[in-house]
Amino acid sequence: MTFTIAVDAMGGDLGPRVALKGCINAVQCFDDLRIILFAHEEERAWLDRQALPDAIELRYSPQIVSMEDKPSQVLRRKRESSMAQALMVVADGEASACLSSGNSGALMGLSRSIIKTHVMVDRPALATDIPANDGHFLMLDLGANIQPRADHLYQFALMGDAWSRAQGKQSPSVVLLNIGKEAAKGTEEIQLAAQHLNEAPVLNFQGFVEGDGLYVGNHDVVVCDGFSGNVALKTSEGLIKLMNRNLAAAVRSSLLGRFMEPLAKRLLDKASAQLNPVANSGAMLLGLQQLVIKTHGNSDERAFFYSIEYALQQCRQGVVAGFVQNMDDFDQ
Amino acid sequence: MTFTIAVDAMGGDLGPRVALKGCINAVQCFDDLRIILFAHEEERAWLDRQALPDAIELRYSPQIVSMEDKPSQVLRRKRESSMAQALMVVADGEASACLSSGNSGALMGLSRSIIKTHVMVDRPALATDIPANDGHFLMLDLGANIQPRADHLYQFALMGDAWSRAQGKQSPSVVLLNIGKEAAKGTEEIQLAAQHLNEAPVLNFQGFVEGDGLYVGNHDVVVCDGFSGNVALKTSEGLIKLMNRNLAAAVRSSLLGRFMEPLAKRLLDKASAQLNPVANSGAMLLGLQQLVIKTHGNSDERAFFYSIEYALQQCRQGVVAGFVQNMDDFDQ
Repeated sequence: MTFTIAVDAMGGDLGPRVALKGCINAVQCFDDLRIILFAHEEERAWLDRQALPDAIELRYSPQIVSMEDKPSQVLRRKRESSMAQALMVVADGEASACLSSGNSGALMGLSRSIIKTHVMVDRPALATDIPANDGHFLMLDLGANIQPRADHLYQFALMGDAWSRAQGKQSPSVVLLNIGKEAAKGTEEIQLAAQHLNEAPVLNFQGFVEGDGLYVGNHDVVVCDGFSGNVALKTSEGLIKLMNRNLAAAVRSSLLGRFMEPLAKRLLDKASAQLNPVANSGAMLLGLQQLVIKTHGNSDERAFFYSIEYALQQCRQGVVAGFVQNMDDFDQ
Repeated sequence: MTFTIAVDAMGGDLGPRVALKGCINAVQCFDDLRIILFAHEEERAWLDRQALPDAIELRYSPQIVSMEDKPSQVLRRKRESSMAQALMVVADGEASACLSSGNSGALMGLSRSIIKTHVMVDRPALATDIPANDGHFLMLDLGANIQPRADHLYQFALMGDAWSRAQGKQSPSVVLLNIGKEAAKGTEEIQLAAQHLNEAPVLNFQGFVEGDGLYVGNHDVVVCDGFSGNVALKTSEGLIKLMNRNLAAAVRSSLLGRFMEPLAKRLLDKASAQLNPVANSGAMLLGLQQLVIKTHGNSDERAFFYSIEYALQQCRQGVVAGFVQNMDDFDQ
C-alpha cells in the first residue's frame, strides 16, 4: 500500500530547495511513500529542470502565504496558495497528510476551514510525540492556544487520550503540566481543568506533573497551555544543543579526549539520538479530521525528512482514523 | 571581613540533618562565613550532641512552618517559627542573608512582612543566575507570580537591571520570554509590557527571546511570568538529569567505553559542571531590602552548600546594597 503526503514547499525560512531535498531523501528511503509537492509559480523554472524521482509530483500555485499574512486575510484571499492547495488534496482524499513549514496561524486557520475540526473540538492544538526516559509521550498544546480555558484543557486531554489509544496505548495516563503537585497550585483554569479531569470516568488522569518530571516519562499524555508548552519544548531544544556543544568542546580540550574523539563522538551521538526528534520534529495540528503537520519555520532538509517520516508512520498505522473513531466515541 | 548568613534548618523534605551538613561544609570551605542555624526545639537533643565548628551558632524556635501552612495563617500564627526568626536576624542587621528550603508562599509572605519590599516593587519575584553559553543571565520570575500584569513584568525588568548592574554588568540587556519574536506574539500583558519597556529610556531592552534562545545567552536579564519561568527552569533540570543518565548508560554499554569510563566520566563532569547550578541552586526573592534565598524543598547538602556559597558571593560583592541603591535611583 502506498501513502500520499502533500508538502507545502513555500513559507519556510530556508526556501523550497530545502523542502525538496527532504522530500527526495524521504521517497528514496520509503518505498510506500508518494509526495505531491506544492510550490509557487515563480519556482517553476528551476524546479522543472530537476531530475525528480517518480514518487514526487510537482504542482504549482499562483499564490503564497507569507509570515506577515494575518490568518483572517489568508482565509479570504489566499485560497490559491500552495498551503491551501496542499490542504485541499488532503480534504479531497487524494493525500493522507499535509505538511508545511509556513505561517502557523494561517495553517491553523486554513486547516480548520478546509479540513474541518472534529465536532468535539473547539480549538485544534499543536501536539508532538516527545521521547522520554522510557518510550515517548504526547504533549499538547505547544503554542496554538496561549491562554486556554479549563474546558479547552479538558478537550486537549480527550484529544491526547484518543490519539494515544489510536497509537496502540492501553488506557493512556494523562497529566497536567503545573508548577507544583498540590491541588492549590497553578492558575484557576488549571485547577478547574484538574477538577473536571478527576471527575471524568473515561480518562486515566494522574494529576499534575512539574517541568522536572516531564522527561521522567511516567505518563502518556501531557496537557498544558500553549505558552508554557512552547517554552518547555523550545527550552529543551536549546539546552540539548548547548549540552552537545559543551561535550564536544570538553572532548577536544583534553589530550586523551582528542585521541579518543571518534569513540567519544559515537557515545555522544548514541546518548543524544533519543532526543534528536525534540530538536528536529514539528508538531501536528491535533483535533482535525485529517493529519496536518507544522514543521519549524527554520526547518532544514533533515527536519523535513523527520516530519515526513513521522507522518508516514501515523498513516501506516491508521492513527488518524483511529483518533477520529475514538473522538466519535466520546460524543456518544 | 566576616559575613553572617541565617539558615532555616526546618521545612525541607530531607530534614535538618541535611541542612546542617551543608552548613558545616560551607563554613569549612569559607573562612569569612558565619552561620546562625535555626532549628525547632524538638531537634535540640541530637543537635546539642553534635561537635560543631565555631562558625555555626544554633538557635531554637518553638514553632515550625509546614508545607501545608497557608501564608496568611503563617503571618498571624507562626512568628516564632524557625523561618520567621531566621528572617528577623536579617531584618535586625545581625545577619546579611537568609536561606530556607521551606514553604515558598510562607517564606514570601514572612519576607515581605519582616524584611520589607523596596518601595518601587509591588511583588518580589523569584530570580536566579543561570549559566549560559557564555557567562550567565538572571531570570525572573520563576514561580512567585504566575499571572503577572504588564506593570509587574515591567517592574521585574527594573529589578533585573538593578541587580545585574549591582553585580557589575554595564547596561545589562533585558529580554522578555515569549513564544515568538514578532510584536504580535504572546499574551496581551506581554505585548503591553514590551511596549512599556521599549519606551523606557533607562533600560537596554532587546525585545523577545524564545525558549531555544535562552541558553544562547545573548542577554543579561530574562523577564517572564512565574508559570512559564518555573516550567522552563524545571524542564531544564529534568533534561540535564536525563542527558547525564543517557551518557553514562552509553559509556557503560560500549566495551571500549567501559574501558575508558574514568575518562568519559571526567569529560562528562566537565561538560555538565557549567549546568550543575541549574540543577542545584535555589532562587532569591528579588525586590526585598535584604537577601532571602529559597532553596528547593528537596535540597540535599550539596544544594544547601551551593545556595550558601551564592549568598556569600553576593554579600562579599555588596550586591544587595547596590541593588537597593539602583532601585532608589529609579524612584527619582
